[in-house]
Amino acid sequence: MKQHKIYVVGIGPGEYEKMTIQAARVLESCDVIVGYTVYVDLVKEHFPGKVFLTTPMKQEVKRCELAFEEAVKGKAVAMICSGDAGVYGMAGLMLEVGHGYPDCQVEVVAGVTAATGGAAVLGAPLIHDFALISLSDLLTPWEKIEKRLICASQADFVVCLYNPSSRKRGDYLRKACERMLEYKSGDTVCGIVSNIGRPGENMRILTLEELKETPVDMFTTVFVGNSQTMVIDGNMVTPRGYRMK
Amino acid sequence: MKQHKIYVVGIGPGEYEKMTIQAARVLESCDVIVGYTVYVDLVKEHFPGKVFLTTPMKQEVKRCELAFEEAVKGKAVAMICSGDAGVYGMAGLMLEVGHGYPDCQVEVVAGVTAATGGAAVLGAPLIHDFALISLSDLLTPWEKIEKRLICASQADFVVCLYNPSSRKRGDYLRKACERMLEYKSGDTVCGIVSNIGRPGENMRILTLEELKETPVDMFTTVFVGNSQTMVIDGNMVTPRGYRMK
Repeated sequence: MKQHKIYVVGIGPGEYEKMTIQAARVLESCDVIVGYTVYVDLVKEHFPGKVFLTTPMKQEVKRCELAFEEAVKGKAVAMICSGDAGVYGMAGLMLEVGHGYPDCQVEVVAGVTAATGGAAVLGAPLIHDFALISLSDLLTPWEKIEKRLICASQADFVVCLYNPSSRKRGDYLRKACERMLEYKSGDTVCGIVSNIGRPGENMRILTLEELKETPVDMFTTVFVGNSQTMVIDGNMVTPRGYRMK
Repeated sequence: MKQHKIYVVGIGPGEYEKMTIQAARVLESCDVIVGYTVYVDLVKEHFPGKVFLTTPMKQEVKRCELAFEEAVKGKAVAMICSGDAGVYGMAGLMLEVGHGYPDCQVEVVAGVTAATGGAAVLGAPLIHDFALISLSDLLTPWEKIEKRLICASQADFVVCLYNPSSRKRGDYLRKACERMLEYKSGDTVCGIVSNIGRPGENMRILTLEELKETPVDMFTTVFVGNSQTMVIDGNMVTPRGYRMK
């Protein structure tokens, strides 16, 4: 039995009520909440009286160490992430860094990730098999990302893209669409959702050919349908299989 | 503006507190809660005074019609699903059936799906790109499922398998492992989680070679790592990319 428990909590898309009841209870029970500045700002007002510690982007290892240092002092600590802590989130790094803090037990609290949060806004694009791919090549070679786009398209997966754009990667979504268009039809039903569960939430349904020409920002999640995906009353819907009645 | 609003609510893995605050609020606001018997039993005690309507497995279309019929009578109605309503859930079918009820507006409320709920139990297997594949060939030809297993393995995706087994499909997980072993190493770190967020929750970490020989039941979710996935202090962890310090 380890002496200290430290939580890694996915807070969901942003809105307080899209967090799980467990996430809210854990945060209420903590003394210290650690996170990236933007996420801390999303929850701050709902958890008065807590100590909030933040580090900027690219200081993720430091952020984890900060959390563990508080825990070994005897504080009840939660590291927060937007969406789910286990999907491009901090759960993995917390477990890696936690290896150096053998008295601390890391517990991950799941949340609603942008894929499912965004899917709910669009309708039901992820009902069947899908692949989640991040277009960020900060830690992954672009060739590997392209390979995934191609293989996912060959196998007719619905594809959900995280990090479709950034200041330095303005043309990555276009490049990704070009790879997918080698195996997916230009008419494939696609959807984009920005600011999921936050002020300014916005969605649009379009074809893969149109998506290629559409600029998106870093707060956008992109959905590319499979060969069966259709538009029903303005919603993006993938049926459950290949033999619908 | 449509006259009636009808909700499709993902209740998460099972435990009440793993549901989102929004899901709980919506269910509290409803008169009628419709669902598959097993899911209704999971929530019943937390929402006293509601009318619960159920249909058995394979009566999904009828279940949707039941929900819409209540809504057009003026009742506040929610259709519930385990996990997320948009991942192998009822959101798609509700939108399809809803086309016949033009006065009803369908709203999907996202939840924690077994992939992220199970990942939290194992550690952090889904931190990087992953593919979700159902092994059920009820609506999808097995050749299509095999193609997805192969393509996902070729591109070094982490693979999460839903419906890995059933009475009629006892050897499907073995067959799936054989396909993945064509491109993934036998040492690949894998994890299985059963009864996520329910009594009897159980997890195990093993290799892909071992997974091939392991019988699982239909309440199990299976995780197959990528080439970078490792075991840290008993947890299954996939690092964020390919260039970790």
